[in-house]
Amino acid sequence: MNLIYTLDLLGTFVFAISGALTASDKKLDLFGASVIALVTAIGGGTTRDVLIGAQPVGWLTDTNYLLVVVLAIACSFLFKKYIMKLRRTMFLFDSIGLGIFTVLGLQKTLAFGLSPVVAVIMGAVSACFGGVVRDVLSNEVPLIFRKEIYATACLAGGALYLLLQFFLVPQDMVILVTVCFVIGLRLLAVRFHWYLPGIG
Amino acid sequence: MNLIYTLDLLGTFVFAISGALTASDKKLDLFGASVIALVTAIGGGTTRDVLIGAQPVGWLTDTNYLLVVVLAIACSFLFKKYIMKLRRTMFLFDSIGLGIFTVLGLQKTLAFGLSPVVAVIMGAVSACFGGVVRDVLSNEVPLIFRKEIYATACLAGGALYLLLQFFLVPQDMVILVTVCFVIGLRLLAVRFHWYLPGIG
Amino acid sequence: MNLIYTLDLLGTFVFAISGALTASDKKLDLFGASVIALVTAIGGGTTRDVLIGAQPVGWLTDTNYLLVVVLAIACSFLFKKYIMKLRRTMFLFDSIGLGIFTVLGLQKTLAFGLSPVVAVIMGAVSACFGGVVRDVLSNEVPLIFRKEIYATACLAGGALYLLLQFFLVPQDMVILVTVCFVIGLRLLAVRFHWYLPGIG
Repeated sequence: MNLIYTLDLLGTFVFAISGALTASDKKLDLFGASVIALVTAIGGGTTRDVLIGAQPVGWLTDTNYLLVVVLAIACSFLFKKYIMKLRRTMFLFDSIGLGIFTVLGLQKTLAFGLSPVVAVIMGAVSACFGGVVRDVLSNEVPLIFRKEIYATACLAGGALYLLLQFFLVPQDMVILVTVCFVIGLRLLAVRFHWYLPGIG
Repeated sequence: MNLIYTLDLLGTFVFAISGALTASDKKLDLFGASVIALVTAIGGGTTRDVLIGAQPVGWLTDTNYLLVVVLAIACSFLFKKYIMKLRRTMFLFDSIGLGIFTVLGLQKTLAFGLSPVVAVIMGAVSACFGGVVRDVLSNEVPLIFRKEIYATACLAGGALYLLLQFFLVPQDMVILVTVCFVIGLRLLAVRFHWYLPGIG
Repeated sequence: MNLIYTLDLLGTFVFAISGALTASDKKLDLFGASVIALVTAIGGGTTRDVLIGAQPVGWLTDTNYLLVVVLAIACSFLFKKYIMKLRRTMFLFDSIGLGIFTVLGLQKTLAFGLSPVVAVIMGAVSACFGGVVRDVLSNEVPLIFRKEIYATACLAGGALYLLLQFFLVPQDMVILVTVCFVIGLRLLAVRFHWYLPGIG
């Protein structure tokens, strides 16, 4: 589906920009920033592909992803100040990426013949693990382990996807509803400061 | 072997609890704690499977592991205070897990046609790397790099396994002796504060 | 090619020593130091192999690499003070390792049918990612993300390799020139304090 592919590349672009900006806060050089940008953008899908055995991992076989990441690094380098003002727009695209990555990760895992429960988890891994690797490389406790609803939105979205599919909702509709659901849940969670309790 | 499988699940359970409690010390939310619990429990086997190319990795194809981890997270969440009092029992089970994971990792590596030396290393990786990934995600220098005999017990156990097998000891006996040896070495090391020297 | 293989093992040896010495600064015990040494030496090639799907990863099938690492750990443990005085020689060998690993990683990636751009990246990953994993395990922001030209030399070397090959330069010559180029660029960068700018 062409729209999905376009949104996938768009999500990759936004994730890479967010990675590059993080790196900039950390006083990394251009190379370090590029690695962090790359890892933020493709780390989730890479982790999923390595775990399910889909190698060579995705971005090695479709060079468009690399191109998009290079473009994002160039933009971060040239237009940093301008991008900083677009935080709100960036946040929206980030949420769109979250929704798209969840659905694509879930579908690829199912296509590998793994169980629905595992597919839901791999959907969340695809969407969130790029950020985890970014934080580990930046020597931080991963943000999504501490903050508001993020991966939880992906898990809920994955469950919704399976539920809709079970009730024979047409595939395109399932995808659309799931993506919108993840985006909506994420936006609401940030707007209303929803968060999960800790242990004990 | 049914006993081995049961002990494997028990080890997974205890490792997951230890992960969840670590996460609780770190003020992570329920999602972060769940990831740390999962990673502690299945990180070792996952690392081994990825290195030897046994994908999809184990816990993706046998959902019992995930179930056990979810159960462990629920127990940590509900009975945290009670579990804290069971530290001694937990430590025993943790050592049992260590022994079991060592043997299972070694056997799987041999089954993939790799050399005995590599199998011994992969046995230790299976048993110890979950804790390493847990510590990396929690932004700590891995505990086992600094503290008493832990991975060393797994390496010694693996060597013993191969030795017994070489002398044609029956398979069941080899497994039993190795697991008990690892457990015993671990308990003795903690009891008598055995540790390794540093470099220089 | 026998010379390449020897240099590969030599590079592995030097990388392992540098890992062991880092671990020594961090007050790790002998086991921790051994893991850091191993990971520094084989982490780059392992990451590449896992990403392109070349499993079991290299050092699991050719035990010479393990042997060399064990030897390096023993040397670090026994001759630490002596090795510290050889920093200049070590640095030279480290640069040689960088050049060799770049070429080998690039060649292996091409042999797996992946695109030249990806092969250049994987060359740099092979040469540099061992150090990244070492730093992550030691709870540091990876050195190569912050300091002078390092991975950049590998990327430039990879590009040169492809360029020479494109102009039908004989294979041996391509390898030799690329390795020397990476070594030279690295030495010059350190000598003249070349570095990359940051983002913004």
